[in-house]
Amino acid sequence: MAKKLGIQSTRASNYQDWYPEVVAAADLAENSEVKGCMVIKPWGYALWENVQRVLDGMFKDTGHSNAYFPLFIPLSYFEKEAAHVDGFAKECAVVTHHRLEERDGKLVPAGPLAEPLVVRPTSETIIGASFAKWVQSYRDLPLLINQWANVVRWEMRTRLFLRTAEFLWQEGHTAHATAEEAVEETMKMLGVYATFAEDYMAMPVIQGEKTIGERFPGAVQTFCIEAMMQDRKALQAGTSHFLGQNFAKASGIQFLDDKNTLTHAWTTSWGVSTRLIGAMIMTHADDDGMICPPRLAPKQVVIMPVVRKPEDRERVMTYCKALKVELEKQRFAGGEDRLRVELDARDIGGGDKKWEWVRKGVPIRIEVGPRDIDGDVAMVARRDKQADKPVSMPRAELVAGIGAMLDDIQASMFARAKAFRAEHTRVIDTKEEFYAYFESPRTKNPNDPTPIHGGFAMTHFNGDPALETKIKEDLKVTVRCIPLEAGEPGTCPFTGQPSAKRVVWAKSY
Amino acid sequence: MAKKLGIQSTRASNYQDWYPEVVAAADLAENSEVKGCMVIKPWGYALWENVQRVLDGMFKDTGHSNAYFPLFIPLSYFEKEAAHVDGFAKECAVVTHHRLEERDGKLVPAGPLAEPLVVRPTSETIIGASFAKWVQSYRDLPLLINQWANVVRWEMRTRLFLRTAEFLWQEGHTAHATAEEAVEETMKMLGVYATFAEDYMAMPVIQGEKTIGERFPGAVQTFCIEAMMQDRKALQAGTSHFLGQNFAKASGIQFLDDKNTLTHAWTTSWGVSTRLIGAMIMTHADDDGMICPPRLAPKQVVIMPVVRKPEDRERVMTYCKALKVELEKQRFAGGEDRLRVELDARDIGGGDKKWEWVRKGVPIRIEVGPRDIDGDVAMVARRDKQADKPVSMPRAELVAGIGAMLDDIQASMFARAKAFRAEHTRVIDTKEEFYAYFESPRTKNPNDPTPIHGGFAMTHFNGDPALETKIKEDLKVTVRCIPLEAGEPGTCPFTGQPSAKRVVWAKSY
Repeated sequence: MAKKLGIQSTRASNYQDWYPEVVAAADLAENSEVKGCMVIKPWGYALWENVQRVLDGMFKDTGHSNAYFPLFIPLSYFEKEAAHVDGFAKECAVVTHHRLEERDGKLVPAGPLAEPLVVRPTSETIIGASFAKWVQSYRDLPLLINQWANVVRWEMRTRLFLRTAEFLWQEGHTAHATAEEAVEETMKMLGVYATFAEDYMAMPVIQGEKTIGERFPGAVQTFCIEAMMQDRKALQAGTSHFLGQNFAKASGIQFLDDKNTLTHAWTTSWGVSTRLIGAMIMTHADDDGMICPPRLAPKQVVIMPVVRKPEDRERVMTYCKALKVELEKQRFAGGEDRLRVELDARDIGGGDKKWEWVRKGVPIRIEVGPRDIDGDVAMVARRDKQADKPVSMPRAELVAGIGAMLDDIQASMFARAKAFRAEHTRVIDTKEEFYAYFESPRTKNPNDPTPIHGGFAMTHFNGDPALETKIKEDLKVTVRCIPLEAGEPGTCPFTGQPSAKRVVWAKSY
Repeated sequence: MAKKLGIQSTRASNYQDWYPEVVAAADLAENSEVKGCMVIKPWGYALWENVQRVLDGMFKDTGHSNAYFPLFIPLSYFEKEAAHVDGFAKECAVVTHHRLEERDGKLVPAGPLAEPLVVRPTSETIIGASFAKWVQSYRDLPLLINQWANVVRWEMRTRLFLRTAEFLWQEGHTAHATAEEAVEETMKMLGVYATFAEDYMAMPVIQGEKTIGERFPGAVQTFCIEAMMQDRKALQAGTSHFLGQNFAKASGIQFLDDKNTLTHAWTTSWGVSTRLIGAMIMTHADDDGMICPPRLAPKQVVIMPVVRKPEDRERVMTYCKALKVELEKQRFAGGEDRLRVELDARDIGGGDKKWEWVRKGVPIRIEVGPRDIDGDVAMVARRDKQADKPVSMPRAELVAGIGAMLDDIQASMFARAKAFRAEHTRVIDTKEEFYAYFESPRTKNPNDPTPIHGGFAMTHFNGDPALETKIKEDLKVTVRCIPLEAGEPGTCPFTGQPSAKRVVWAKSY
């Protein structure tokens, strides 16, 4: 009973329902009554804090500083970049008044603003206004700034973490003296995201470039990391944009170069969001709930004292407290990460307690009762392997080996996700096979109970946007990216025209 | 020239202008073109990050978890607590539309919302809605949550860091089973703020309770920490509110107690904001610019290589890099804090460079030239003592003593601020002396160039709100707080009525 609390669906039977059930059962987030806005609960927020801490360190190591810019963007800023405003106008929260007034016993907006303000959906234009002031000479470049912030995009169909009206993210914004330097920055930060996804989230990603249709509004080139979820759909986990001089021209970011010529700067922007939490869930969680990758887990280890007789309580608690202290001295990930250990001494049933931690996805659970103390052992369960089968381990072995065990969990999770992706990636060279690969029963009937087909198709493409649109209409499949990795030229199976390399096709979030 | 760049005013001659000049010259923040919204620049944001890191640790050590709640609050939530809505209705940013549309070639708000949304000025009501779901039984209590977020209060007269339309803050929200526990939490967090202000910001504060007129809208009791700025005005640096059952009733936060009776919870909220940066500036900065308290300084030490001949460059840089590595191994504050050292090798004039770090307030500056290397010494300047007079120190002594030097700077800054406050605090027992104390020439003419009078007056008070209003009208002076510290009963000099203890009167921000 306790086991299944909250998770009725399985990935195989009903992936659509399984996901929100895991989010709820792992206590990660919940919908608020504000349309499309989520509440990130402590366990979910702790995951995000770990994401922030690690990424922030990586940004600083690559020379970036954090700053903070206004939440509100004047309409006039927004309009400066035509493609940009087209891309975001349909989903903006607009502030039109600055106070509330009682009228006929009802509170209504009052004090209309002279110029409406848009709640930032992204900050290129508002940050550009500052950059225009900060940059005067080539000596002021490169300007390497990051912002941790909330943004709002008024999505109609929302899904916790994956697509919400308000979400948390970081947005890097940089300005450079040359196109080459800006492109180098764009690729460097894409690399940072890929490293983070693989080494910390244990989530394999493909680095690549977006096609025109999927480009960020206003960008010259958009690059991304794409991951495969357990329903074989792709999820864009991070993007890095080379903005050329488009936004510099829109905002007036100009500098005197070393020949004293006034030139527009070259800018980039790049971001990841709380969507990464959704990506972790859909990469790792199983039918019992969440599985947190050890390097980002809010707690890596939970110790549960098992006390049936009140007279045993003190002895067991003393032992568990000492064990916690010892474990917290251990490190993993090559000594880089310190263990976070929870001692759960709450007075609730052992089964309920255990399944709560299973659902939350703590990598290692340790149970200690009086008999374990007598034998100087503990019952240990790895969340990634035996959700329900703890094994007895000598205490000394457990303490000495806990770092290696966490390393092994981290590596196993990554290997499993990588194998899953390999299993569901197919090189396809004919239109017929391509259509058959993606035309699952569910394409025609979303309620069809058989598992979905498809995954990633590695297929040549002549690059024609109209063809991509046609395939999207037919199959809801798009080019997820043109991989950075070298590829062989070939023939586009849809048109017979030449293609530079295979691209990644998939359904996506 | 370089010295005074940007700071033309002095505290004595023109405090009003001196403050924004310091903010600008220290590169802490700037006004945006969005009315009342500031841009927090990297140096200012780094100060805030250090504030966040330390406070976040203190919140977690006292059992709190972070979470995140929606930016938008439905009007209907807001209306649930009558005093609350009265307190905030006059300064709310209101979202009324969810997209933009082109009409007659102009972009205008479209897609009106069924219910307007208020951009959170504070989150009691939106967090209350979640708490009502999370709390069922006494076992769910206490619920100890904190949120780091941006909030918006549409202030008409803004001042960087001190009063801005958007600001960053943390807001703690907790629910308890009894009034006693909630009061205990309220006081505990006030104590955390006081410790942080004194031990990290080097800013002495008075802990006390607010009078009814200054109470948070909807609170039963509001407590605060109050500090004295260098213009002798008081600044409220943090508040902690005991909310009784007011918000629990408004939001329906109810629990079954151990006798199975359905009861409303008792709640608290407490917050500090980016205003703390303003408080640090006005407590410590001098006429040359900012002075950062070492424990929160983005960099505690800056090393400046002094190279006049190009052939010396490599030797000096090698020496400076090695010195940086050695200094970064040192610690201070009883071994708790690690040194943050900047090596500024930019190719700009030494005078400009030095004065830039003076204005930014780095606690210790080190200059190293070829002759210093020959003598194995360095030129060292403490920002708090000799802005312009570095002294020669043997390298070994410098490295071994840098931690102690930072401790001494931290302690000296606190001592100086405390002495300043003592000097400008007066026990006053007659109405005449009270009025004379605060009726400075500037009270009558804000452009009068003579220094303002007054400071803190420790004066008895019968507690009558009408009297407080009268004094506010007469002098712009209010009760900053009723100190927690024990005091003797006496007589209110304004009414002749009894008073429980002296209270703190002052002009304030």
